[in-house]
This record gives sequence, C-alpha cells and structure tokens, in this order.
Amino acid sequence: MKKRNSVFIATSLDGYIADKNGGIDWLHRIPNPNNIDMGYGEFISQIDAIIMGRTTFETVCGFDIDWPYKKQVFVLSNKLNKVPEGFKGKAEIVKGTLTEILNKIYQKGFHRLYIDGGATIQSFLKEDLIDDMVITTIPILLGGGSPLFSELPEELDFACTKSKIYLNKVVQNHFVRMK
Amino acid sequence: MKKRNSVFIATSLDGYIADKNGGIDWLHRIPNPNNIDMGYGEFISQIDAIIMGRTTFETVCGFDIDWPYKKQVFVLSNKLNKVPEGFKGKAEIVKGTLTEILNKIYQKGFHRLYIDGGATIQSFLKEDLIDDMVITTIPILLGGGSPLFSELPEELDFACTKSKIYLNKVVQNHFVRMK
Repeated sequence: MKKRNSVFIATSLDGYIADKNGGIDWLHRIPNPNNIDMGYGEFISQIDAIIMGRTTFETVCGFDIDWPYKKQVFVLSNKLNKVPEGFKGKAEIVKGTLTEILNKIYQKGFHRLYIDGGATIQSFLKEDLIDDMVITTIPILLGGGSPLFSELPEELDFACTKSKIYLNKVVQNHFVRMK
Repeated sequence: MKKRNSVFIATSLDGYIADKNGGIDWLHRIPNPNNIDMGYGEFISQIDAIIMGRTTFETVCGFDIDWPYKKQVFVLSNKLNKVPEGFKGKAEIVKGTLTEILNKIYQKGFHRLYIDGGATIQSFLKEDLIDDMVITTIPILLGGGSPLFSELPEELDFACTKSKIYLNKVVQNHFVRMK
C-alpha cells in the first residue's frame, strides 16, 4: 500500500494554531449550527493511524471527554516510557528518529498516517516527510500565537489541488508535495 | 463614493512576502506560460489610488523598468520630503498619522485605495484600517523571510468570500473584514 504522511489542521489567517495564551476557542468562533465536519470524517476514513507529539497527546488526555480517536495512535516521545493509566491500548509510545519510527509503524501495517500537532508537523517538514496538507483557514487575524510553520533547512514546493469555502467564511485548501 | 482600503498581495504558503534574503524570485517559480495576471488587472481597475511605504517605493524606483503604475501613487514617508528626480508627477509623498493621510487623500477625490507593501499593510492592520484582502498563496514553504502579518493590538475577524485556483497550483483567497 502506498505510504502517505498527511496533515489536516486549522490555522488562523495569520498562520497560528493557538493564540498568544495557547487558546483555541477562536477555532469555533464562526457559527457552525449543523456541526459540519469540513471534511474531517472523510479524511480520517482514508488514514490508518495517527502520529502525534507528547504535548498534543497529554492535552487530549487532559480533556474531560471520551477518547476521541477511532484509529491507532502513536505518540512521539523520548521522555514518556509508557502511556498513562487509563490510556493503555489507546495509544502507543514510539521513540527514535522519524525514519526509524516510520519504519516501525509501516512494519505494523499502518501506511497512511495522519501527522498531528504543531511540533510534530514541524519536525516532519524539516525532514521533508509530509506528502499532503489540508489546511483550514479560520479567517481571523490573531496577531500572535504558536505558528503552524517554522524554519526549514530547505524550501519545499507544494501545489494547491483543491479549495473549498465552508460556512461562507472559512476556506480549506489542499496542498500536495511536488518533488 | 464608498471608501475602501484593499490589499492585493502574494505570500508563500508559510506567510512570507520575501524570502530570508529579501528575494522574491520564488513568486515566479510556478510556470505561467500565458502570463495570466491572476485578477490583478480587474483589481486595479476598481481602485482609485495606491498607498505604499517608502521601502516599496524606493524598490520600484530602483527597477530598470518603466513606471509600472497607472493610478496615482501616494508614498508614506516621514523621512522623504520630495520624490526623487525622474519620479516627479508619478508619486506624491504623504506624512502624518494614517487617519490624517487618509483624510487628505479622500479630499483629493481618491476613495478606493490599494494598500501595498509589507510594513504599510501591517501599520494599516494595527489600526484596523483594512477592509478587504486578496491573498495569493504561492504553495512554497520558504522556511523563513519577511512575514506579511505581524503583531496586532486586537484580533480582527474576516470572512473568506471567494477562492480560486490558478495554474493548477496557486490559490487565491478573498477576505473581507467583518465588523
């Protein structure tokens, strides 16, 4: 099966994934009365597993909600040795270089991977390991926060292959890596 | 006539208007064999005058090309007192606060203004003086450079009203300020 590392994330118009205080309330500022998922369900149906960083994992563990993922979750962490009590079987810790980690995950039969969390996406991009990105732009200028993108050792060319407006305000653009 | 301050600018996928070395060659990296203007002509036809900063003005003056603007140009500068020899009649220096400058320009009969140049756009956004932005995203991650957006005293809500893909790769999104 073809291997693919995909991003599906929302940013502000100025490219932040969290505001100056780490908040993400602005993600839901635009009314969505029918709770449309803006393609998330379709995206998830086409991936085999999720790779996220420890920060994202611990944030999700801290939410007072049922475990939200229906796919296998791998947590990148050189610090954690095991998942916290209550999350066993839901997520698995992986260690090593990204290439080593990816090879381990491929050997387990997962090939189409959802790469989630700001730091994790940045580390994959630094090694040119992202194949496609669905970026949903919430049209708010936050004026500061945690940026989705960071420094790169080399420029990376993508192509925008699809663009769609949701809720008359939000735009979602699909980018595919061009090599 | 209705007053309107508009932006029409291209950025990289990571939000830069110039690369780490100040270069803009990447703007033209995607082949455009028929030289389509991606809406620039239509945009310009709907504005009365251009406001740009001194840096943008001096950059354009330095190009070995005919004066590229067919509309009145106002140059924001508290440093320049007059336009350089050879550019008289092409551009006019304006000084003062943005509100004072806008009032002077309105009095001259110009109401639909094209706000151009990174620093100028940022200063207008800081005072919530931008009504709409056409942002053309060149799908390249530069990994650093001069960002289009900067810090703001308060968040600003926009809506994406139109999105179009050009050359099968470039996406152009139209944002309108929501108050």
